[in-house]
This record gives sequence, structure tokens and C-alpha cells, in this order.
Amino acid sequence: MQQMPLKIFTGSSHPELAHEIAKNLHVKVDDMTLTRFACNEIYVRPEQTVRGSDAYVIQTATSRVNEDFMELFIILDSLKRSFAGRIHVVMPHFGYARQDRVATPREPISAKLMAKLIASAGADHVITMNLHSDQEQGFFDFPVDNLSAKKLFVEYFAKKKMNNIVVVAPDTGAAKTAKRFADAVGGELAIIHKVRTAHNVSEVSHVIGDVADKTCIIYDDLIDTAGTVVNAKEALLRKGANDNVYLVATHPVFSDPAVSRLKAAKFQEVVVINTIPLPKEKQFEGLKVLSAAPLLAKTISNIHNAKSVSSVF
Amino acid sequence: MQQMPLKIFTGSSHPELAHEIAKNLHVKVDDMTLTRFACNEIYVRPEQTVRGSDAYVIQTATSRVNEDFMELFIILDSLKRSFAGRIHVVMPHFGYARQDRVATPREPISAKLMAKLIASAGADHVITMNLHSDQEQGFFDFPVDNLSAKKLFVEYFAKKKMNNIVVVAPDTGAAKTAKRFADAVGGELAIIHKVRTAHNVSEVSHVIGDVADKTCIIYDDLIDTAGTVVNAKEALLRKGANDNVYLVATHPVFSDPAVSRLKAAKFQEVVVINTIPLPKEKQFEGLKVLSAAPLLAKTISNIHNAKSVSSVF
Amino acid sequence: MQQMPLKIFTGSSHPELAHEIAKNLHVKVDDMTLTRFACNEIYVRPEQTVRGSDAYVIQTATSRVNEDFMELFIILDSLKRSFAGRIHVVMPHFGYARQDRVATPREPISAKLMAKLIASAGADHVITMNLHSDQEQGFFDFPVDNLSAKKLFVEYFAKKKMNNIVVVAPDTGAAKTAKRFADAVGGELAIIHKVRTAHNVSEVSHVIGDVADKTCIIYDDLIDTAGTVVNAKEALLRKGANDNVYLVATHPVFSDPAVSRLKAAKFQEVVVINTIPLPKEKQFEGLKVLSAAPLLAKTISNIHNAKSVSSVF
Amino acid sequence: MQQMPLKIFTGSSHPELAHEIAKNLHVKVDDMTLTRFACNEIYVRPEQTVRGSDAYVIQTATSRVNEDFMELFIILDSLKRSFAGRIHVVMPHFGYARQDRVATPREPISAKLMAKLIASAGADHVITMNLHSDQEQGFFDFPVDNLSAKKLFVEYFAKKKMNNIVVVAPDTGAAKTAKRFADAVGGELAIIHKVRTAHNVSEVSHVIGDVADKTCIIYDDLIDTAGTVVNAKEALLRKGANDNVYLVATHPVFSDPAVSRLKAAKFQEVVVINTIPLPKEKQFEGLKVLSAAPLLAKTISNIHNAKSVSSVF
Amino acid sequence: MQQMPLKIFTGSSHPELAHEIAKNLHVKVDDMTLTRFACNEIYVRPEQTVRGSDAYVIQTATSRVNEDFMELFIILDSLKRSFAGRIHVVMPHFGYARQDRVATPREPISAKLMAKLIASAGADHVITMNLHSDQEQGFFDFPVDNLSAKKLFVEYFAKKKMNNIVVVAPDTGAAKTAKRFADAVGGELAIIHKVRTAHNVSEVSHVIGDVADKTCIIYDDLIDTAGTVVNAKEALLRKGANDNVYLVATHPVFSDPAVSRLKAAKFQEVVVINTIPLPKEKQFEGLKVLSAAPLLAKTISNIHNAKSVSSVF
Amino acid sequence: MQQMPLKIFTGSSHPELAHEIAKNLHVKVDDMTLTRFACNEIYVRPEQTVRGSDAYVIQTATSRVNEDFMELFIILDSLKRSFAGRIHVVMPHFGYARQDRVATPREPISAKLMAKLIASAGADHVITMNLHSDQEQGFFDFPVDNLSAKKLFVEYFAKKKMNNIVVVAPDTGAAKTAKRFADAVGGELAIIHKVRTAHNVSEVSHVIGDVADKTCIIYDDLIDTAGTVVNAKEALLRKGANDNVYLVATHPVFSDPAVSRLKAAKFQEVVVINTIPLPKEKQFEGLKVLSAAPLLAKTISNIHNAKSVSSVF
Repeated sequence: MQQMPLKIFTGSSHPELAHEIAKNLHVKVDDMTLTRFACNEIYVRPEQTVRGSDAYVIQTATSRVNEDFMELFIILDSLKRSFAGRIHVVMPHFGYARQDRVATPREPISAKLMAKLIASAGADHVITMNLHSDQEQGFFDFPVDNLSAKKLFVEYFAKKKMNNIVVVAPDTGAAKTAKRFADAVGGELAIIHKVRTAHNVSEVSHVIGDVADKTCIIYDDLIDTAGTVVNAKEALLRKGANDNVYLVATHPVFSDPAVSRLKAAKFQEVVVINTIPLPKEKQFEGLKVLSAAPLLAKTISNIHNAKSVSSVF
Repeated sequence: MQQMPLKIFTGSSHPELAHEIAKNLHVKVDDMTLTRFACNEIYVRPEQTVRGSDAYVIQTATSRVNEDFMELFIILDSLKRSFAGRIHVVMPHFGYARQDRVATPREPISAKLMAKLIASAGADHVITMNLHSDQEQGFFDFPVDNLSAKKLFVEYFAKKKMNNIVVVAPDTGAAKTAKRFADAVGGELAIIHKVRTAHNVSEVSHVIGDVADKTCIIYDDLIDTAGTVVNAKEALLRKGANDNVYLVATHPVFSDPAVSRLKAAKFQEVVVINTIPLPKEKQFEGLKVLSAAPLLAKTISNIHNAKSVSSVF
Repeated sequence: MQQMPLKIFTGSSHPELAHEIAKNLHVKVDDMTLTRFACNEIYVRPEQTVRGSDAYVIQTATSRVNEDFMELFIILDSLKRSFAGRIHVVMPHFGYARQDRVATPREPISAKLMAKLIASAGADHVITMNLHSDQEQGFFDFPVDNLSAKKLFVEYFAKKKMNNIVVVAPDTGAAKTAKRFADAVGGELAIIHKVRTAHNVSEVSHVIGDVADKTCIIYDDLIDTAGTVVNAKEALLRKGANDNVYLVATHPVFSDPAVSRLKAAKFQEVVVINTIPLPKEKQFEGLKVLSAAPLLAKTISNIHNAKSVSSVF
Repeated sequence: MQQMPLKIFTGSSHPELAHEIAKNLHVKVDDMTLTRFACNEIYVRPEQTVRGSDAYVIQTATSRVNEDFMELFIILDSLKRSFAGRIHVVMPHFGYARQDRVATPREPISAKLMAKLIASAGADHVITMNLHSDQEQGFFDFPVDNLSAKKLFVEYFAKKKMNNIVVVAPDTGAAKTAKRFADAVGGELAIIHKVRTAHNVSEVSHVIGDVADKTCIIYDDLIDTAGTVVNAKEALLRKGANDNVYLVATHPVFSDPAVSRLKAAKFQEVVVINTIPLPKEKQFEGLKVLSAAPLLAKTISNIHNAKSVSSVF
Repeated sequence: MQQMPLKIFTGSSHPELAHEIAKNLHVKVDDMTLTRFACNEIYVRPEQTVRGSDAYVIQTATSRVNEDFMELFIILDSLKRSFAGRIHVVMPHFGYARQDRVATPREPISAKLMAKLIASAGADHVITMNLHSDQEQGFFDFPVDNLSAKKLFVEYFAKKKMNNIVVVAPDTGAAKTAKRFADAVGGELAIIHKVRTAHNVSEVSHVIGDVADKTCIIYDDLIDTAGTVVNAKEALLRKGANDNVYLVATHPVFSDPAVSRLKAAKFQEVVVINTIPLPKEKQFEGLKVLSAAPLLAKTISNIHNAKSVSSVF
Repeated sequence: MQQMPLKIFTGSSHPELAHEIAKNLHVKVDDMTLTRFACNEIYVRPEQTVRGSDAYVIQTATSRVNEDFMELFIILDSLKRSFAGRIHVVMPHFGYARQDRVATPREPISAKLMAKLIASAGADHVITMNLHSDQEQGFFDFPVDNLSAKKLFVEYFAKKKMNNIVVVAPDTGAAKTAKRFADAVGGELAIIHKVRTAHNVSEVSHVIGDVADKTCIIYDDLIDTAGTVVNAKEALLRKGANDNVYLVATHPVFSDPAVSRLKAAKFQEVVVINTIPLPKEKQFEGLKVLSAAPLLAKTISNIHNAKSVSSVF
């Protein structure tokens, strides 16, 4: 298996990350034509032979999530039909991951659907990070490496030598991962949930757990419109938390109006991973972006050389 | 489709439930030979033709979970090969549901595996109750009706006209479902998590949320050995909760030593659903078993008549 | 089978056509929530039960072709998981149909890929019109009804009682379908192909066949940027064709700059089918849009009632 | 392919055999956690990475046949998800092999079902011994190596230099394999079948073929409750056979009351293969157990090194 | 389901049988074009719509077995693509049935392959008669109705009121079915096997069981070249059997030189079923052909009306 | 991958080509038993182990096309079950390729069916030449190498240094490939189509494009009965073409009465490829057969060594 040549391809969603991963692997991203016809149909063509290669396609889910998936499917088909030996999808932010169950009757399970379509299109394996729910690994019939960003965050905060920390789950669904992070950084745990007031239909964020005079780290898997976390910060302050609230999340989805909200909310820091590209206009003071590239590169390297991946994270 | 004759079959795991469902449907459980050879291999044979029928197989996961699954697979094969029109599995307690993710590298996802094997063996559809995680619906490529017992519990407690309730999640993973139940019964929320003490490796249960002078309802999807919930009760009392603590859970798995622990713990009530048979020796004072049969029967009836199932629960 | 209730759903690509089809069927388009989350992920949910129904999803490929396909896949998943009896895709203009072969090594066959993904997502059957190549029916493992618009065009021109017609294939790949149309309207055949001039790299359109003093009908399956057909018209005039050149094509893709080119080219008429919506800004004098709705409605009706479809077209 | 590391795993059904095979291969059985939760669900986890390995899982069918299969399925899932390169099942005694046809309408074909479930769970190949019927190889869509124990038995009896042998099929279904063994050891053939007596519903064993003053070897693929073979021995003696009757069978299923019957019947020898573990209480005087380990080890070695397996047996 | 229209199609292998079945069902064989192009490729086209129909394709394996299978596959594809509701193959003599196991390493299992190809081509169900081995039902993943001709033979011989019968298996592989027939007609059992003489490589047929002064019925599933059965007859006469030996077999394959051998052998009667057409030149004195048409028609009728088939045979 | 041993097998359709390919690869065709039973069933068995090999099966479609396919399927099954590492079908003339679409309702798509059956039988890859339509590559879910004979023809005619060439498509469906060949040899283009005369049902071949005093090369993918091309030649001469008309086609199907027609038509040359064997009686003066063996051998060699195949043609 070691003879399979390694090939790294990138879709158009996050070429910077692909190049950073390649650099970490001491290789170059392989050439592939990737254009649009006038009618908006995608055209893909690897420039060199891929026969018998161990091919990794780096494509993440951005705000153009549907285009990202379609491009991925078509890349996979071109690799499959060109007789690539093994095809891996590297999708650090897995799109549609939150649609992972039938919450209301007749809803689709879009995360499962994406898993199925990726397999239909030709993939043999998926590498991703912090899936919205761990169970989604079971949506695939083939192996999935679901890397954890926790280690990156723990290392980052370890350098700060902070005391008196409370890790805060911004809703009950995040309680379990917040708990794990709290244990890793030696902090307490608090959980926020929304409560409807008696005579009023509006909801207020309610904190359970003691946060008075503590430094809070709100911890979630992603930041979408940032509404919940901004409310969470206010609720924490109301309960006497220190002013310097941190916000930590793997995936900076940053849908409108997340950026303006986050700017206004003045978190001490907003710490995220570069699983989604953040153009200039989505960056702001206090935003700290950690890179997943070394972790992803090490994972690819170990897989390519048939070593254990669990040792990586 | 209405012409398809309805057939109800039962495995050996929970015939009482099957008969109760059939009674609710005003039909009889259909005859099927179900024996063992001397070598312990299972033998199955429906007594009458099943050609073109709408067949429901009632089999739950008990403490003989592996036998239950194998029996189910073999029943499904016999129905499939005998040309049943549509084959439904009714598995109120879905075995292996907690093995729903790779928590440690190289673990299987046994819940997904069971889903796949059920499909391979011939099923077209599954009806179950309160899957350990909602995401498990996505483990199937065909429709799943995951009924909720919440409504049964809400009705049960509504009659008690209790005040001052706190719904307690016994661990962070149960926070989300506890929150939903709290909202439904109009209670507060508290969450318990385990903390290691500074100089000691032992864990203590830590309560977050205010429970002093409140009536607590510990809420979980199942009770296995009951260790966690018994510790939870103690932690609640230490924090000043009222003595009359309720324990509510859908699936009474009751693995050893659950029953002795529950007897000793003297909950005000332990309220469960009959998704698993409870022989005499597993019953005790304060145990209240609600029946899922009317709900399951109504679901089967609506499916058989191509009506909406969501209206049922 | 007749008892299966008929359900008509529409994606967001061409609701006008869906409503027109429904009207022809004397039914209403069924209610379905179809929105976007802030992060641009699609959300779908049929409003009423679809259990056991004969469901038709009307979705065509527009200039937002990738969004159209993703929306379609998710609609199909929601119907499949909600236990629809039979699921039909009605895609009058099948996207990616021109990417139907590996023209250059390592290209994908995107048309086949779309066929495969539609099946993976849950469809049982596809109804489409004038596939770019007839062979694409074989990309599906299930039945395909590939309706022909030829009859609509023949009827349209029959009313004009034109004489002295030449049907013109704008390139060699269109020769076969042009020939069939020529036979149907009783015209001659001419074919245009591009030739490189001796000392020059530019291509000129070369007409083979006699067009002098004839009324030409350029015939193709679709109009994309309209470059080829506008050049074709000029070539025909250079060879002495009558001024009043018609342009006939099933699918008005009209990618930029098709509309400005067509306006400038002053065809006698540009006759197309409403397989793709044409907003005001894409309409112009001389554009004649025939409706596929009666044909599609009749097809759906016959399928729903298990009658022959071949009699329809 | 030679670079794939060899891995040997054992389920809990027959670890002695696994260790004996490993010893023959000069390797160790690989570490794998294999436990039960309190609720009786199986938990499995290979201790070291299996990425890209050539993994053999040794699991046979014992009297806990259903547990054996479930354990096997779960082991396979863990290997598959952990990206093993190729997964082989080594099941010397294939469970449910006798349920290989629909003898009575509506019976399952459980042997085929087990084949299908093994494939679903992740296996690429099966190695087994003396399947109840050779046709069962066709129950798999992938390659099967169905090793024959005949050679072991022939070698064993060759050393005895016996004369005047008759090989006896204990029923008509065993006639063909008995004939092959007779030819291999140079013996005559006799066949026993059951006949109902005229005025009586009881059956008597009827011998066809001449056994007077001959040394009989009753030959079958397995010994279950031993009723048939004990009756067979009596019938042979009634027909004048020598007292020293041998009983030869590959699989010592030995369901109750096989052991007491065999002890009472006083065969000259009962010769079996160690395809099923025989604890002390199932052993008795005259029982001779031949080992399949060298044969299985040689087969694994040849497969691992891509050599012919047919040369092995 | 009752509304599905019944359609009967015939391939070119045995139209007489198809028409006889249709007559028994009081319907006509449906029109289907079935021709050859000059290059020998098969062309098939049902003349009327088959949408939603319950279609039965009658095709048996004759001496042109490969053409028969290819024709069948193509008919199935045309029905599948034309949206037939359910597609049944009625193949009374299943071709390649004897290649049901890997007797020598690297042999195909052609019977399993045919099962797989029939399914791939679009069939949902197979009806056949007396498969060479019962286990072949397990080669299919869908239901198989394997009808038995035994009842036809039993009724035929019952009318003769014969005494003193011995049913003879012409080889050890046929022992089991011969035994069943012997029990049904109240006869003894004898078995023939081939033995190599000491100093000679030639084989002689050896009879086990007592046939002196008995009327023998040689019983097998098919007659191919008739060599074995003719030798069997001689061996029986050598052992003192009555002169009037009967030969009974379901499938009259009659490969060359079967007919001349059978004529020369002068059996009292050769009784077969019309599962394969027997043109004039393959008929001879003493040949008795029983018809499977009533049995097949009754089976089709019961399946079409979702009644039990087991009651038929 | 390089370690996989290369194996070349040949079916009975075109052993000469197989041996020529093997010679070009400096290997021998591997031994395989390939016979018929008396009943006409095919028997196949590779003589040596194929475990882990890279196996190429050379089988083309001749006038015994159905036998050729069945033999191929059975060879594939034997290789698959014997654990070949990778199985390639080399079918230079792909049978049923012209049945690639539903031209008339209810027709099968036999070309797609053959693709599906080849895959079901065990192939991983197909190598073919000049498929009737390029789209047929999409009938496969795995990679297809569709080699082009164009280069062979271009080289052949380049040596003749001809001037004043017109490449002629014998019907409109062949226009596109004729155009490509015209561009490659620097010729003009003409197209022939059939027209019905006014008062007469007979068709006449009508030439479009200027052929007067030109040397015509009729170009098609195959020659079946040669009727069309012979008529084409006459039509060209009527329009003043030079007498020395060439006929070029990849596949010499030569169904009756092709050979007599071609002899009578006296083409200057009939140039074909040896994709189909041409026995003596199908050869005639003016027939020129170019060999595909070097091209096929180079393709196999590059695939076996994981090099680019596109560089070959």
C-alpha cells in the first residue's frame, strides 16, 4: 500500500487550508481544472493521471454549502472514473451536520443524506472535525476519522495559565462537550437554557451553575448567527461573571449578522479553528484563529502510511 | 394498499406486549412456530401464508439481547422468503442503542450495525421508542418511527398536580431531553455531573441548578444498573432537595444490581414503560409501569391504513 | 395501486410550471415548507402526511443548477423517510445532461453522477424532456420517461403552412435529431460544421446542404450562450438562405450573453419550451414559449393510473 | 499485498484453537478487548491499530451459537470501521449450516441469512470446514474456502492398516460424502435409512449394502444428539457387522444427550476434529480429537502470501 | 394488489408450455416482439403497456441454454424499464443447476451466477421445478417457489397399482430424493455407485440394496446423456431385478446420445415432465411426458391472488 | 500494486487477438479449461492460482454474441470466487452497443444491461474500443477505457499521402465522428441521409456536401450487413465522386450478406480493425485489417503499472 502515490486535491471552498496542509506534508496540491460553464454547471478535470493513487480531496462547507457539496460530488466522480486507488474526503466543517435527526415529522435527515451521496459519488473514507453529533459517524458505512479540536483549544488556554474558570454550555445540547472541555482545562461547568417568562412569550437565558466572579469560556461546536452566545454572555454577566468572557467554537460559520453581533459583544477573545475560510470582512479584533492544518496533515500522513490515527489527537 | 392483510407476529422476547398490542388492534397475534434445536439454533416458521401481507414483528431487547436479535433476523428472513408484502420491526427498546458512536478509537458502532443487519435480514421499516440518541434514525436507510414516551409521562404527572418541580438530568448527555421534559411539565432544570476531587481519584456527583426544597424528577432514557441515578438522588438530597424524589425512564433495563439498588434507594416512585418485560422478581414497591401498547397499536393501525403517524404522539 | 393518493410537490426552481401542471391535473400543488437557514443550508418539510402516496416532485435545472439539485435531493430524502409510496422526479430540463461522456481523459460523467445521486436520494422514477442524448436513459437503473418536445414543435409549425423548409443542424452532433424533425415537417436537411481556415486559426461555420432561397429552421436541443446558432444564421444567409430564419430548441438555458445575442440576431422567431423559467428580462420580441405543462400533466395522470405513457407523445 | 500486516483475532468461542493456529503461524493472537456490559451487550475493541492489515477473525459456532454470531458481527464492524485492509472470517464449524433450504413452506434459509449478515457486517472472505452442503459456498457473493477434513481422517485411518472396511452413511443425505470417504480408504459402502414398520408408527433403521463380518466406519459431517448414529450402530450389529464400529464426523456438536449416548454406545472410537471446543465434561474414553489448526494455519499463510490454497487440502 | 393486471410472456425456449399454462389460466400469452438482428443480437419489445402489471416470463433451459438465459435477461430489462409492477421468472428447468458448488478449486458456481444475473436484470421472484439441489433456493435473495414434480409421478404410478417396487438412486447424490419417492410410493430403496475394479481402471456400477425379483424405478432429477441410467439398468438386471425397469426423471435434457441410448435400453417406460420441449426426433416408444402446466398455472394464479402456494404441491 | 501478478485469459471468441496481445506484452496467455458439457452448458476453470492477480479477460462480441457474453460472465465468476485481485474485461467490440436507448417505447437498453451484468458477474473495469456511442461509458459505475481506433486509421491514410479527400458519414448519427476524422485527415465533410421519394415508399440516399471529383472515405463505427454503405457508395458516385471510394470502420461485424455485398461493391479498400475475428471466408480482395493488439497491449501494460492510459491513444 505504501507505493500508492499521494495526491492532494482542493475544491474551491478553502484552497488556503489545502495549501497549508500540503505544505505540512512537504508536497504540492495537485493540479486540477475547476471551472464553471456559462450555465453555471461545474467542470472538473485532474491534470495528471490519478490511477492507483491515494487521493485526498479537501473541501469544507462554507456559506456556499450547496455549491461546495456539488463540486465535491463531481470531483469524486472524476477521481473514481479515472481509477484512483483510494479516495478520501477531507471536510473539516461537515455541512448540514445539524440536520441530523427528524425533530419534527417529515423532516429529512440531511446530514445522513450528505453522507450517502458522498459515498455514492465515489468516496471510500471521510476525515472531518468535531461533527455536530458524534453519532453522525454511524451515518457512513465506511470508516470516518472525526478529529477533535479540543486538544488545540486546551493547548491554547494552557499557555494563558488562567484560574477560576467556568466552561459554559450555551444550551443543553452542548452540555456534554462543554463538560469534557471543563474537565480538560480544570474548570467548573455551567449550562444555559432558555426559559419563557410567565406573562410573556419572550425567552430569557437562564444560567444553571455558579459563575459569580468566575472567568467564563462559552464552548460550542460552531458559531452560526451568534445570537445564542451573545445572549449567553449577557446572562453570565447578569449572574456576576467576570467581564472577560471567552467564546470558543470549532467552526466559524459566521452567518449574517454574526460578525456585527460579535464585534458589539466584545468578548475577551473569540477562538475558532480555520475549518472555514474567514475573509478580511469577517475578521475583527479579538478573533483568534487556530490552524487545523498540522493536525489534518499528520492524519493524512498516518493514514497514507497505514499508521494509527488515534495517536494524532 | 389497504387490501394487504395485517399480520402481527411476536418473537419470544415480550409476548405479553405483543398480545396487548394485538388486543388494542382487535386482532390476534398470528401463529408462528418458534423453537430451538438441541444445538440451540433457532427455528422459525409462520403457520399460515404471509404472501402480500403487511407484517409487524414485535421483538424488544431484553437481557438476552443477542438471542433477541438473532431470533428477529431469522423471523425476518422467513417472512421475506415467504413473500410478505411489507415487513415492519416493532422494537420498543432498541438493543445496543447506547453504542452509537466511536467514543474510543476502534470501537464498533453497534447500534448502526444492528440497523444494517435488520435491513439485510429483510425489514422495510422500524418502529421504536425513545432511541438513546435521536440521530440513530439516520442509521437506517428506510423510514423509522421513533415514538416518544414523553407524552405518557406528562399525562401521568399531570394527574398528580405537583408543584415546585425540578427535572434533573443525571448526566450532561441527558440534559437536552431533561430540558424538554421540564418544559412540558413546567419545571425547573438541574443537571448532575461527576467531578473528581482534588487529592482523590474518586468521583462525586455535583449538582448544578437550584434544587433546595424542590421536588425532583430524575429523567433519563433508560435505567441500567441504576448506579448513576442512585448517586444522583443522594447528591440532590445533599443539596437540600425534598425527600420525595421521582425517577422516570422509558426503558427498564434493570441489569443487576439495579433492582436491589432501587429498592434500597426508596424513590418516591420509579416510573417506566413496559418496553421490556419485568418479571415478578424485578418488580418492587414504588415501581409504576405505564403501557406502550395503546400507542404502538395506534401507530401500527395508522401505518397500516396509510394515515399520519405524527398525530399519534 | 389506484388508491395511492396523488401528491404534487414543487421545488423552488420553477413553481409556475408546477402550478400549471397541477391545474391541468385538476389538483393543487401540495404544501411544503422550503426555506434556507442563515448559513444557506436548505430546509424542507411536507406539510401533510405523504405515507403511501404517489408523489411527484417538479424541479428543473435553471442557472442555479447546483442549488436546484441539492434542493431536489433533500426533498427526496424527506419524502423517502416519510414513507411515500412511490417517488417520481419531474425534471423537464435535466441539468448536467451535456456532460454525458468522457470527452477528455479524467473528466467526470456528471450526467450519470446526477442520475446516481437522484436514485441514492430516494427517487423511483424520472420524467424528463429531450435529454441531451437519448443514451442517458441508460444512466438510470430504474424507468425513465424521456418525453419529446418534437410533437409540440411540429404542431406549431404545421399551423404556419410554410413551404420550402430546410431544417438545419447547427453542428454535426445535432444532425440526427435535426433529420428527424426535417422528416416530421417535410423539410430538407442541412448541417453546419466549423472549419479552420488555412492560414488562420479562427473557425468559420461551413454549411453542407442546399439552403439557397429556402426558409431555414435551426434545430437544437437547447440554447445556451447562443453563439453557435447566431453564427449558424450568418452562415446560412451567406449561402443565400431566406432572411426569415427560425430558431427552435427545447430548453431555453439562455446563459449570458444569449439574450443580447438573440435580440441582435433578429431571428424570425425563437421557439422554445417552458422547461426553464424565463423572467421578464430574458424575454424579447420574437420569442415564442410553448408550454410543456399539458404534456407533463397527461404523463403524470397516465402513470398514476397505470396507463401507457407512450400514447402521450 | 505482501506488506499488509497479518493480524489474528479471536472471539470468545474457541480461543484455544486460535492460539494453536497462531502458534503454527509463529505469531501471537492480537490483543482485543472483548467483554459484556451488565445488560449483556457485547463490547469489542482491538487494542492496536488495524489500518491496512490482513485480519483473520477466528470464531466457531458452539452451543452458544447465537452469541457467537453476534460477537462475530460486532468484531467485524469494529475492524471495518477501523480501516482494516481485508477481513477474513475463520469459522471452522459454520452455525446454522443445516438450515440450508426451505424443507417446509415458509421456513427461513438461516444458513444463507448468516452468510448475508457476515457480509453486511464487513467480511471479505470466509474460511470454513466441511459445510453441511457444498452448495452453501454459493450463499456468499465473495470467495469461500471450504476446507475438507477428509484428508485428516484418511491419514488417521491409514496408520491403522485396517482391512475389510465398510463406510456407512447414517442417512441417505450423507451417502455422497460417505462414498467419497469409502473410495479414499478403499472400503465398501453401506447406507442406512429409516423405514416405518407396517402396523406401527415407530421407525427402524434399515441397512442397505453388505456389512456382515465387516468393520464399519459410520461417516457424517457432524454429531449433534447422536441419536441417529447410535441407532445406526445397532442396525449394523443386527446385520452382522463386527463389534468394533468406528464413528467419524468433522464437527463434534455434542448437544445433550450426545455424550451419554456415545458413552453408552461404546464405539471402538469416535473420531472428530477440534472445530468446536470440547470441555472436559464432553470428553470420554474412545474419543479421538484431531486438530484442524495446522490445516487452518497453512491456509491462512497461503492466502496471506497470495499462494494457492487448493494445494493445502 | 389484486388490481395488478396479469401478464404472461413467453421467451422462445418453450412457447407450447407457455400457451398451455395460459390456457389453464383462461388468458392469452401477451404479445411481445422477439427477433434477432442479422448480427444475432436479440431484440425484444412487449406490444402493449406493462405498467403496474404482475408479469410472468416463461422461459426454460433447453439445449440452447446460453441463448435462453440471454433472451431472458433482455426480456426482464424491457419489463423493468417499462415499469412492470412485479416481475416473475418461470423457469421450469433451471439451467446450470448442476454447477452448484466448487467441486474442484477455481470452478465457478454458475447456478449462483445465473441467480444473481436474473436478479440484476430485474426479476423479483422465480418459480422453478425440482432444482438440482434444494440449497439453490438460497442462491437468491428474493423468494423462490421450487415446485416438486414428485406428486405428479406419485399419482401416475398410483394408477398402475404396482407391487414389489424398489426405487433406485442411480448415484449416491440422488439417494435422498430417491428415498423420499420410495416412501411416497411405498417401495424399497436401492442405491447404485460406481466402483473401480482392482486391476482395471474401468468402473462398474455396483448395486446396494436388494433388487432380486423386484420392479425397479430408477429415479433422478434429470436425464442428460443417459449413460448412468442405462448402466444402472444393466446392473439391476445383473442383480436379478425384473426386466420391466422404469426410469423417472423431471427434466428430459436428452443431450446426445441420450435418445439412441434410451431407445436401445428398452425401459418399460421413461416418465418425464414437459419442463423442456421434446421435438418429434427426441420422442420414442415408451416415453411418457407428464405436463407441468396445470401445476404452474395454479401456482401463478395463487401468487397473483396472494394465496398460499404451498397448498398447490 | 506492482506486485500483483499479471494474468491474461482468453475466452473462445478471439484467441488469436489474445495471443497477439500477450506477445506484445512478452507474456503467455494463462491456461484455462474452457469446454462445453453435452447439454451445452459452459465449463470454465483457470489452471493455476489467480489469488491476488491482476487478471485481464479478452473476449469480444462475434456473431455468437450471446454465447460470448455467457462465457464471459462465467469466466468472471470463476476469477472472482478464486480471489483474483482485480478483474478487467477487454472487449474490443462491445456487443449490443447499438441498443443504447429506448428508441420505441418498451424497448430494453441492452447495452446498459450488458454493462450491469458484467459488473454483477465480478468485473472491476472494462477496456473496449470505439463504443457505438460515447455515452455508454456512463452505463458503468466503474472506470471504462474506451480506446479510439481513429489514430490507427489516421496513420494508415497518412502514408497514402492522398489529396482531395471527403470524409462521408453514411447517416446523420455518424456525422460527429466523421467530422472528427475529417479534421484529423484534413478532408472535407459530407453526410448521407435517406429520403423517401414523393410518390413512392422506397428510400433513396441523399448526399449533402460537395463530393464531385473528390476521393471519398465513408467512415462508420462498424459494418454490419453493409447495405447502408453500399448504397452510400452508389449515391456518392451519382453525385460525381471519384471511383476509388474507401470504406473505413472499426468493427467488421460482417453479418450476412455483408461479404458478398462488399465484394460486389468493389471499394478501393475496406479498412477495419481486428476487433472481431475474420475467418478466411469473410476475407476478400481490398480488405485491409489493422491490428488493435499493440494498442491494447500498451493499455494493459500502463494500467498494470498504474501509468496514464490517455497517453496511449
